[in-house]
Amino acid sequence: MEETLETSSRPLILVTNDDGIFAKGIRELVKAIHEFGEVVVVAPDKPQSGKSHAVTLDAPLWYTVSKFEDADRAYKCTGTPSDCIKIALFRIMDRKPDLIISGINHGSNSSINIVYSGTMGAAMEGAIHGIPSVGFSLLSFNSDADFAAAAHYAAMITERIVENIKSLPFLCLNVNIPNLPENEIKGIRVVRQSRGEWIESFVRNYHPSTKRPYYWLTGEYHNLEPESVDTDSYVLEDGYIAVQPVTVDCTDYGALSAMENYFDVK
Amino acid sequence: MEETLETSSRPLILVTNDDGIFAKGIRELVKAIHEFGEVVVVAPDKPQSGKSHAVTLDAPLWYTVSKFEDADRAYKCTGTPSDCIKIALFRIMDRKPDLIISGINHGSNSSINIVYSGTMGAAMEGAIHGIPSVGFSLLSFNSDADFAAAAHYAAMITERIVENIKSLPFLCLNVNIPNLPENEIKGIRVVRQSRGEWIESFVRNYHPSTKRPYYWLTGEYHNLEPESVDTDSYVLEDGYIAVQPVTVDCTDYGALSAMENYFDVK
Repeated sequence: MEETLETSSRPLILVTNDDGIFAKGIRELVKAIHEFGEVVVVAPDKPQSGKSHAVTLDAPLWYTVSKFEDADRAYKCTGTPSDCIKIALFRIMDRKPDLIISGINHGSNSSINIVYSGTMGAAMEGAIHGIPSVGFSLLSFNSDADFAAAAHYAAMITERIVENIKSLPFLCLNVNIPNLPENEIKGIRVVRQSRGEWIESFVRNYHPSTKRPYYWLTGEYHNLEPESVDTDSYVLEDGYIAVQPVTVDCTDYGALSAMENYFDVK
Repeated sequence: MEETLETSSRPLILVTNDDGIFAKGIRELVKAIHEFGEVVVVAPDKPQSGKSHAVTLDAPLWYTVSKFEDADRAYKCTGTPSDCIKIALFRIMDRKPDLIISGINHGSNSSINIVYSGTMGAAMEGAIHGIPSVGFSLLSFNSDADFAAAAHYAAMITERIVENIKSLPFLCLNVNIPNLPENEIKGIRVVRQSRGEWIESFVRNYHPSTKRPYYWLTGEYHNLEPESVDTDSYVLEDGYIAVQPVTVDCTDYGALSAMENYFDVK
C-alpha cells in the first residue's frame, strides 16, 4: 500500500524519440532517467528522422504494447513523433505527464536542424500542451554510438528539472551533446539557435529497369554566423553541451514592429 | 531579343503548396500572380497536408514536368513541400528565385497550425536560404472552395512585395485569409501568432478482418488567448486578413535571459 502511494506520487515522465522504439538512444535514455519517475514510453515503431512536426492525417494510427527494459509501460505506434505525443496524451495515458523527454537522438538537432527534427517536433508538441518538454541529441549519427556521456548528462538535467518541476524558467529545451567522452565535456551552456542552412546536393541515380532518374537528398551544413559565441553551434564546437530554450511562437517580432501598417492598402 | 531581355529581368517566382499540384488553391494562386514575374511551379504530386517541415531521408525523390496553365514551367515531385523547395533550389532551377510563394492552402494555418503546416514548412525553407517567402491560406478546407477573394488579396500582397523586393522589412510571411466574399473582408492586419492548441479526440475503429483497433486523429482547436486583439486568430474572427511575420529561430529569448546559469552543475 505504502509502495502504491509512493509510486503514484512520482513524476510521470512520457518518453519518445524519432529514431524508433528499438534505437539505442531511447534505451540508454530510459535506463538513465527511470529512477526519477514513472516512465511511460510511446515511440514510433520505425525510424521517423526528419519528420519535423508532421502529423498523420491520411491514415489511421495503430499502437501496441511493447517490451522495454526499465520503463513502467511502453507502446510502439505507427505514427510520427508528434502523433506519438498526441495519442499518448489524449488516448493512452490516464493523466497528464509532468514531463516529456524525447531522444536521445542519434545526430545533432542544433541550429537549423531543429526545424526538421522529429525529436524536437515531439518535444514542441508537449510544450504546445503546456507540459515541460526536453529533447536530447547526441552529435553522432552512428546507430551504435557511445551514449555514456550523453546519458550521464541527460540524467543530470532531468534530475534538476524534476526537482524544480513547479517553477521552471522554461517550457521546452533543445539539448545537444557533443560526441566526446564525459571527461572531455567542458560543461553546459544556455544558448540561442545559430543561423545556419543546409546546402543540398541531390545525388542522381537511375532506376534499374526504367532508367528514370531519381535523387537522394544529401547536403552539407553551413553555419551562417561562425563567429557568434552565444550560439549552440559555437559552444558545441568548443566542447560544451548546448541548451536552447525553445518556443513554438514563430512570430518574427523584429519584423512585426517594423511593418505594422505595411499592407494598409484598403 | 528585346523580349528575352525583358523576360530575364522579371522576378523569378517559385511556387509550391502542400495540397498537391492538382489542388484548386495553387491553380488559382498562379492565375492571380503570374503577371508579376516568371513563375516556376515545383509542387508535391499528391496531398502533403500536415507534413510540417518534414524532409525525405529514407527514399529517393522523383520529379517530372507537369502541365500547368499560366506557369512558365511546372514540375511535380514525390516529396514533401520542403523537399520541393530544396530540389527546386538545388537541382531544378538555374538561378535563385527572387520570391517563393506557397499555397493557396485549403484551410487555416493561423495560430499553432503553422507548426504542422506543409505550406508554411515550404515557405520557411525558403527563408532559411535567405529568400523572401510567403504562405497564403484560405480558411476553408473545401477542395472546391471559392478562392476569388483570397486570390485577389494574394495578388495585391505579391505585387507589393515584388515592387519592394530589395527592401522588405520581413523575410517570411504567414498570410491567412478569412473565408468571406471580397467585399466583406475588412482589410489586412499585421499580427503575432495566437497561443492555441488542438484538443485531440482519437476516433477508434476496427480493422474489418483482424478486428484490431485503429485510431483517426481528429480534434478541436482551442484559442488559449481569445481576448488578445493583436493576434492572428482575433483579427481573422473579426473579418481581417492576418499577416504574421515568421522566423525560423525557435529560441525562447524570454527564457534564455532567465536561465543563463541554470545548469551550471559542473
